[in-house]
Amino acid sequence: MGVNSNRVEDSSSPSNNNTNETIIRISSELSTRQTMEIHNVCLPPQKTTCQKLKHRLSEIFFPDDPLHRFKNQEWCKKLLLGLQFFFPIFQWGPQYNLNLLRSDVISGLTIASLAIPQGISYAKLANLPPIVGLYSSFVPPLIYSILGSSKHLGVGPVSIASLVMGSMLQEAVSYTQDPILYLKLAFTATFFAGVFQASLGLLRLGFIIDFLSKATLIGFMAGAAVIVSLQQLKGLLGIVHFTTKMQFIPVMSSVFSHRDEWSWQTVVLGFSFLVFLLTTRHISMTKPKLFWLSAAAPLTSVILSTLLVFCIKSKAHGISIIGHLPKGLNPPSSNMLYFNGAFLAVAVKTGLVTGILSLTEGIAVGRTFASLKNYQVDGNKEMMAIGFMNMAGSCTSCYVTTGSFSRSAVNYNAGAQTAVSNIVMASAVLVTLLFLMPLFYYTPNVILGAIIITAVIGLIDYQSAYKLWKVDKLDFIACLCSFFGVLFISVPLGLAIAVAISVFKILLHVTRPNTVVLGNIAGTQIYHSLSRYRNALRVSSFLILAVESPIYFANSTYLQDRILRWVHEEEEWIKANNGSILKCIILDITAVTAIDTSGIDMVRELRKMLEKRSLQLVLVNPVGSVMEKLHQSKVLESFRLNGLYLTVAEAVSDISSLWKAHA
Amino acid sequence: MGVNSNRVEDSSSPSNNNTNETIIRISSELSTRQTMEIHNVCLPPQKTTCQKLKHRLSEIFFPDDPLHRFKNQEWCKKLLLGLQFFFPIFQWGPQYNLNLLRSDVISGLTIASLAIPQGISYAKLANLPPIVGLYSSFVPPLIYSILGSSKHLGVGPVSIASLVMGSMLQEAVSYTQDPILYLKLAFTATFFAGVFQASLGLLRLGFIIDFLSKATLIGFMAGAAVIVSLQQLKGLLGIVHFTTKMQFIPVMSSVFSHRDEWSWQTVVLGFSFLVFLLTTRHISMTKPKLFWLSAAAPLTSVILSTLLVFCIKSKAHGISIIGHLPKGLNPPSSNMLYFNGAFLAVAVKTGLVTGILSLTEGIAVGRTFASLKNYQVDGNKEMMAIGFMNMAGSCTSCYVTTGSFSRSAVNYNAGAQTAVSNIVMASAVLVTLLFLMPLFYYTPNVILGAIIITAVIGLIDYQSAYKLWKVDKLDFIACLCSFFGVLFISVPLGLAIAVAISVFKILLHVTRPNTVVLGNIAGTQIYHSLSRYRNALRVSSFLILAVESPIYFANSTYLQDRILRWVHEEEEWIKANNGSILKCIILDITAVTAIDTSGIDMVRELRKMLEKRSLQLVLVNPVGSVMEKLHQSKVLESFRLNGLYLTVAEAVSDISSLWKAHA
Repeated sequence: MGVNSNRVEDSSSPSNNNTNETIIRISSELSTRQTMEIHNVCLPPQKTTCQKLKHRLSEIFFPDDPLHRFKNQEWCKKLLLGLQFFFPIFQWGPQYNLNLLRSDVISGLTIASLAIPQGISYAKLANLPPIVGLYSSFVPPLIYSILGSSKHLGVGPVSIASLVMGSMLQEAVSYTQDPILYLKLAFTATFFAGVFQASLGLLRLGFIIDFLSKATLIGFMAGAAVIVSLQQLKGLLGIVHFTTKMQFIPVMSSVFSHRDEWSWQTVVLGFSFLVFLLTTRHISMTKPKLFWLSAAAPLTSVILSTLLVFCIKSKAHGISIIGHLPKGLNPPSSNMLYFNGAFLAVAVKTGLVTGILSLTEGIAVGRTFASLKNYQVDGNKEMMAIGFMNMAGSCTSCYVTTGSFSRSAVNYNAGAQTAVSNIVMASAVLVTLLFLMPLFYYTPNVILGAIIITAVIGLIDYQSAYKLWKVDKLDFIACLCSFFGVLFISVPLGLAIAVAISVFKILLHVTRPNTVVLGNIAGTQIYHSLSRYRNALRVSSFLILAVESPIYFANSTYLQDRILRWVHEEEEWIKANNGSILKCIILDITAVTAIDTSGIDMVRELRKMLEKRSLQLVLVNPVGSVMEKLHQSKVLESFRLNGLYLTVAEAVSDISSLWKAHA
Repeated sequence: MGVNSNRVEDSSSPSNNNTNETIIRISSELSTRQTMEIHNVCLPPQKTTCQKLKHRLSEIFFPDDPLHRFKNQEWCKKLLLGLQFFFPIFQWGPQYNLNLLRSDVISGLTIASLAIPQGISYAKLANLPPIVGLYSSFVPPLIYSILGSSKHLGVGPVSIASLVMGSMLQEAVSYTQDPILYLKLAFTATFFAGVFQASLGLLRLGFIIDFLSKATLIGFMAGAAVIVSLQQLKGLLGIVHFTTKMQFIPVMSSVFSHRDEWSWQTVVLGFSFLVFLLTTRHISMTKPKLFWLSAAAPLTSVILSTLLVFCIKSKAHGISIIGHLPKGLNPPSSNMLYFNGAFLAVAVKTGLVTGILSLTEGIAVGRTFASLKNYQVDGNKEMMAIGFMNMAGSCTSCYVTTGSFSRSAVNYNAGAQTAVSNIVMASAVLVTLLFLMPLFYYTPNVILGAIIITAVIGLIDYQSAYKLWKVDKLDFIACLCSFFGVLFISVPLGLAIAVAISVFKILLHVTRPNTVVLGNIAGTQIYHSLSRYRNALRVSSFLILAVESPIYFANSTYLQDRILRWVHEEEEWIKANNGSILKCIILDITAVTAIDTSGIDMVRELRKMLEKRSLQLVLVNPVGSVMEKLHQSKVLESFRLNGLYLTVAEAVSDISSLWKAHA
């Protein structure tokens, strides 16, 4: 490496010793500046390509180092840990006691009172028979209680996944025309959703759901809530002939073109219960202690409205009721899975979209409550739990389920301690399925609409959207796009647009990175932005620039132009102010966390161009990976001595002392 | 802002004064450390949303500040500058003299001798009549010499754009079956390429071509060169029935399934001239002074082979010749533009792809030679020049042209001084078109194949590919993908895959950013990576982490997990080594150049989780935009006093002095 070798130390070579690493230059001419130690910039410890690949892959797939508990353990201890790893119930099961059980029974019964009307309502949202919603509140919670690592997650069908499944399947097959095929497709979609979720967990690709940013989700949920609420106008107004489309415009035109079908009995019944439900919800929100009010309200409404309709049944012809529901446990449905045929693609697509959406909700809800109680949920393990629960569900007449936000919140507030609350809820649903189904005969459909609206209205989080606007305009735009995309185009496309905008935002930041001129904060070794710190001072003869982004193909041309423009502007400023002539450009590349081959070419090119103008280019504080690439590409050699420093202060001190020595 | 207000200064408020900005804490208990000034972290100067938007937009679209020359100028001076801005010929024209002219005439004639055979060959590559290649070497260079800002760019048809146009149009229409339609589509594609290029320049969207990274282009050019060379096997072997497909497999099977059509005369003639051309190329490459050898070789080969075929014409039936070429200038072709009909989409698509490819080559070549002679070419202006040249070309029987690498290299080596060399070349082509066309009657097609192979073989840059492998494995993968994508799938898809991989690489860096544990370099205020600097020491009771990436939705979950894992590992290390208990986590966020709302939530969440474990979280050195967002989202308030410092050294010094004071 020639002259370079005494500045760039290969720290992996054993012959190095520590005393070599510090070069102390004492210049007798230095009067204003103190003598300063100059430190070498080291290369990171050398690694083979294989080691690097291993490190990179382990950071991508195993950032949480899931096997660290297994290290240095005995064989049988390892077995136990492995069992606990795959079945968290073995972790908390042995410590289970009566106290915990009491809390879990109370919370379990509370969520059951919510789960039964919700199950029926959400199934209707997915255009499925109401009973499927109840089936889905029985098997999946049992499986989750064995596999899941969250203590507070309340499992069951959720509004968004139900809506999306309903809208996507309805486009291919109509439930009213071919109910068997529709059911088959729903179970198949559930199966694929489960397979997709479990394989994301198994392949440790859980980070994919991180690409649905919070901003995207806020917009998406609000859009979905509006769509769902509008769909309920069918039930609330008593309209018989309703569009099967989900977008805003066809739904609204459908509502108003069938004004003759509006039934006043339905409207009165529906809106009075809606007001009741919204009031209890409002009370619970303002006084968290009264959470049971909103938790019990749906079941109360169902009971009251059913009694009401039962009493006036002879006069209430305008009010549509649920009617006969079959008694009995979940029938097996593995024979209804549909693996070849014209609609397979629809089922797979629906499975993927509902799978990723329900996964996002489940993981986010699990994380939220875990952080409130200060324990960890393992994202990849949760994915497997949710995935297996859906795969099992698809064979037992259940549709897509996940951790539901409303159920989990009620569960948490009711004092759930472990996943046993899910078992209690499942038992309550079991009793309902076996004995109480005939009681729902007179339940009016309109009440289900009111329950759904009350549930989804909480998804419209306008306060968060306003915060987005205040803090980050581009995030707000992503949010708006997903809102309007879902409302006017379609659910998957709306989501895709929002993800694309989020990614575009990252690229925009990379394409046009910030460059900042630094100055010295008087009396210190600190160099900081001139425009931000008024006590930062220009250092004469130097132009100190900080580049605030990795240098990639996407920005190398821009950065080169921008740096040259800074030089040009600095020279003009000097001319106008009679300053001392510019001699050295210092690039502080602390924040350049990566560089690619285009970036390296840019640095090489820039150095050449500045050299032609008799300007020296100095790099300061490259991070490990950048240093390595500069070294491998032999660009470092062109920087030789006095081209690379550890801090800006050292660079300024050393170079100006050299100038004085040569003067 | 409560307690916070004396640490976070709003630097835009006029009541601030400088003395306020420095808080000096002198702790009497400090024995090991010197008293240290503690500096405030400032907010950047306040800007309205509108100002920010303006700044952002001007950085995106006007990073080069093209209007700075117009500032503070008189009215008529402004007019002159504007004229010079749009027509660079007014800039260098007035200083033009005889000396410059002599150089330009020599270089112009040199490139003409290359341009004539190249024009004919490349037109054949695009499945166009050979004469179109000559037309394309006449009008566009004239227009470029008025509009272009590069002094060395040699303008004309290029191999890649010709190949892509040929392959994309051939898939829709066969030239042999419907030559008029094919010609129409070619001119229409040229027109759209020009419109696209000019509008990229006008809308200042030139940065789009930056997304074709160097790695992508290396792979793409090599793939295209292989495809082009294989296509020439048709001519070199004398095959009559050849596939119209461009991919590797159909071409190779076509070559070997028509072995009966191979003609030995053609093979002998072709390969002997190929050897001649490659030899001259090799000589010129090893001895740059003999550049004229490779520049003159194509014309020499054409003349020699034509004479040869003319002499043995009675015996050489196996050798196909160019035949009759019409004499005369470019006929107008604006009536052949095709704006409605079934093939419009093909023409537009071809225009876009060839437009962006030829633009990339033109800009890259222009920049390369400009940097060799240390002048600047304006990317957006070049785009407009190339765009207008193609739009004019499409109306005068020309197809897509741009700055050609081979021509420009010859031009540069022959001593070109200004764009006048392009005018000289165009004049030479004019003479050829008017008087010399019959001379090409006996030129064998095989010689054109040999010329094309020699030209494109230089595009296979295996040395650069090897460098990519050494410096950046992911860049190398992008390169390989574009190579194999072009070779086996198709040109646009190969390019799209390569761009997607390049973008994925950026996202990967963001999704899994580096976190580094810092230590103090003994005797200094410098904190640096423990694993990289062996003289960096752990600071007891502190864990100092540097985050090397913006914090976005895509990595906030990962970063939270990773930081908690660092804390966990540190605590285990302390337990094993009986170190002093961990009390404070310092996050050095110098390299966190941006943050979004998910990132802010992560910071808030992390602080809460650490607080529950009685660990303090401290942020060090947020950049301006991050500071602003932390402030707007009110996260800063939760950091209150002792939660935000300008440097790691100040944070460590201040916090440990506080501990001692409380002890």
